[in-house]
Amino acid sequence: MKVAISPPVVDQPTPEPTLGISPPGVAPEITAEIPKIAAGTQSEVSGLPAGVDLLERLEGICVDQGLSSLAHRLGAMTGLVAADLAAFEVELDGLPSRPEKVGRAASHLLDLGGKRLRPLCLALATRIGDGFDQKGLDLAVAVELVHSATLLHDDVVDLSDQRRGSATARTIYGNAASIFAGDWLLVEALRRVRKSGYLELLDQLLAVIEEMIFAESLQLENRGRLSMDRRTYFKVVEGKTASVFRWAMTAGGVAGGLDRDQQQALATYGDHLGITFQAVDDLLDLTGDSAKTGKALFTDLREGKMTLPMILALERRSELRDLVEEVLALGAEEPIPGSLGRAIIEHLRESGTVDDCLTMARERSAAAVEALQGLPSGPARQALATVAEAIIDRDL
Amino acid sequence: MKVAISPPVVDQPTPEPTLGISPPGVAPEITAEIPKIAAGTQSEVSGLPAGVDLLERLEGICVDQGLSSLAHRLGAMTGLVAADLAAFEVELDGLPSRPEKVGRAASHLLDLGGKRLRPLCLALATRIGDGFDQKGLDLAVAVELVHSATLLHDDVVDLSDQRRGSATARTIYGNAASIFAGDWLLVEALRRVRKSGYLELLDQLLAVIEEMIFAESLQLENRGRLSMDRRTYFKVVEGKTASVFRWAMTAGGVAGGLDRDQQQALATYGDHLGITFQAVDDLLDLTGDSAKTGKALFTDLREGKMTLPMILALERRSELRDLVEEVLALGAEEPIPGSLGRAIIEHLRESGTVDDCLTMARERSAAAVEALQGLPSGPARQALATVAEAIIDRDL
Repeated sequence: MKVAISPPVVDQPTPEPTLGISPPGVAPEITAEIPKIAAGTQSEVSGLPAGVDLLERLEGICVDQGLSSLAHRLGAMTGLVAADLAAFEVELDGLPSRPEKVGRAASHLLDLGGKRLRPLCLALATRIGDGFDQKGLDLAVAVELVHSATLLHDDVVDLSDQRRGSATARTIYGNAASIFAGDWLLVEALRRVRKSGYLELLDQLLAVIEEMIFAESLQLENRGRLSMDRRTYFKVVEGKTASVFRWAMTAGGVAGGLDRDQQQALATYGDHLGITFQAVDDLLDLTGDSAKTGKALFTDLREGKMTLPMILALERRSELRDLVEEVLALGAEEPIPGSLGRAIIEHLRESGTVDDCLTMARERSAAAVEALQGLPSGPARQALATVAEAIIDRDL
Repeated sequence: MKVAISPPVVDQPTPEPTLGISPPGVAPEITAEIPKIAAGTQSEVSGLPAGVDLLERLEGICVDQGLSSLAHRLGAMTGLVAADLAAFEVELDGLPSRPEKVGRAASHLLDLGGKRLRPLCLALATRIGDGFDQKGLDLAVAVELVHSATLLHDDVVDLSDQRRGSATARTIYGNAASIFAGDWLLVEALRRVRKSGYLELLDQLLAVIEEMIFAESLQLENRGRLSMDRRTYFKVVEGKTASVFRWAMTAGGVAGGLDRDQQQALATYGDHLGITFQAVDDLLDLTGDSAKTGKALFTDLREGKMTLPMILALERRSELRDLVEEVLALGAEEPIPGSLGRAIIEHLRESGTVDDCLTMARERSAAAVEALQGLPSGPARQALATVAEAIIDRDL
């Protein structure tokens, strides 16, 4: 099912203005130095915490591609937050291990690791200010737990069998256990935030969880609706993905003792980063390498989720509609015929959709970096900028 | 499917000590005045709030049975909390109405009403102290939302089609919407508690939700296990039902400005009340009138849930095992043959199980009343005692 796709061109023409998603001012030197991931650059899984491993792999990729500047900056970041991420893993491991199915379902997911991107960003945000203390640690664990809770619920709603290259908790422990495990992690997350003593963050997190729930609802209602529009897509992504990054950055700012304006700047960064992240994720579902993403290609499409590339391509190519209907009509176990997959990818590519989505992602990444400008400069701010840039061509 | 069962005798012999569930000291005058519900006593649904309607129906039952003392006390209670319950309904109605499926699924359940037993008890607890103010109101709405959230999740886990005499939210809006709706109501509940400003109640509610999750998990793991024991049953009921009543009573005490010992007394009352309530609920599933309970008979058994009467009967009658296996082997849509249902009921009755369960319920009800002794006497304390007594023979 791996379908070859020509590598994306770095400098894309700006999409037509009706796209309505481009923040102003993309710094060309930023998009120019984004590395593309070559096959075979995946490093051995190290004994280091998952987040550190992510950093090292990104660094390896940069070196392989001869992008020494970005590699240098990522290397500096590894040193900057390696201890924070190690402390994070210890704290996360400290979640009470419970023998009930619910406890085991939660542990199953948490033990699979993950990119730890949200806690990484939160830790970096604290380091713009006073640093990463116990309260920051509690908040970092909270944001990872919220993220994990949504995965446990999503896998039930989507009836997913694979997650992070392993069987989903629901396939091992059942749907009910996966639902309750998600609930439990939410409760644990709220407790950590409460423990931190930052009540405004507790209120904000409750609001974020509400936002996520309604974004999920919106996505659910638009399942299989080929006419879903961009506005709805961005509403879903804002609520489902960006809201959590926004909260993580605000939380890092609060824990680091930054002022309101600085917290706001970090929140803006988080918002753009979340959109960038999701846009890349959506592209990877169509054009990625399933061995690296840990899930099958076309998963979103098969679940009837219309993501930005598909929405744009359907607008541009009326012939695509029949092909998409064909995919949606397939049974859950039926593989997508290779010719059908290739035909869809070809439409995505030839209509310029893949390139436009990448451009949008780069613009949002640049906007994220731009949002950092008002913050004290230093290695932590630099590292956050690097994350925003490196996230684009991830293949992890 | 309605199977006749001889009315329970009020004065039961104490069950054998191995039952291990009897709290000491049952006041005989209390158990003696418990009314039994005769057919046809159900009053017209009034225009009053659901909770008031419950009170009036209980009052009507008492009058019909010539139990004027209890009727008198229930009438006094109606006056005592009618305004509180009306305010509660207005506040609950104020939950933002959202057009998404998730919002509609939540509204569907909330609009069906319910007994409002938890908010009623919470309001009465506040009235032992300083009274029912806005904070008490927020807490009362919170406890009803938590309860409703668990119903939305339970119905998905149990694949239930009927709730409160109507289609379940999951059958109308889908399982996913019902799950997310439950999540939303939990978030809303936590927000109300946060709004009340009583942070210790927020911490306790998070602990209660965790307790509920693991009780659900335990119940889930024991589905269809005919060898499930009483200890496990009580662990499930403590975590799933009693914990919420306990919290509601503590919350009422806190909002009413009562001291720690008084809050503790109320919590003990809540704990016993919760067990009483669940024990009666479990009996009603086997011997109730489905037209009044709003759900089909034998629902728990068909879902493989071993409740106390069934556990006791299986211990006492080895022949029952095959009959229960027969029920469990039935398809979801297949009705239970009348002869099979009657045979099971006969075993429950002839083994003394129904009577012993009722005795246990009465003992816990008496223990609930006993727990109130240290509290300031007055109409609110009296009303709580009445609730504990009236709950036994409810058929609502």
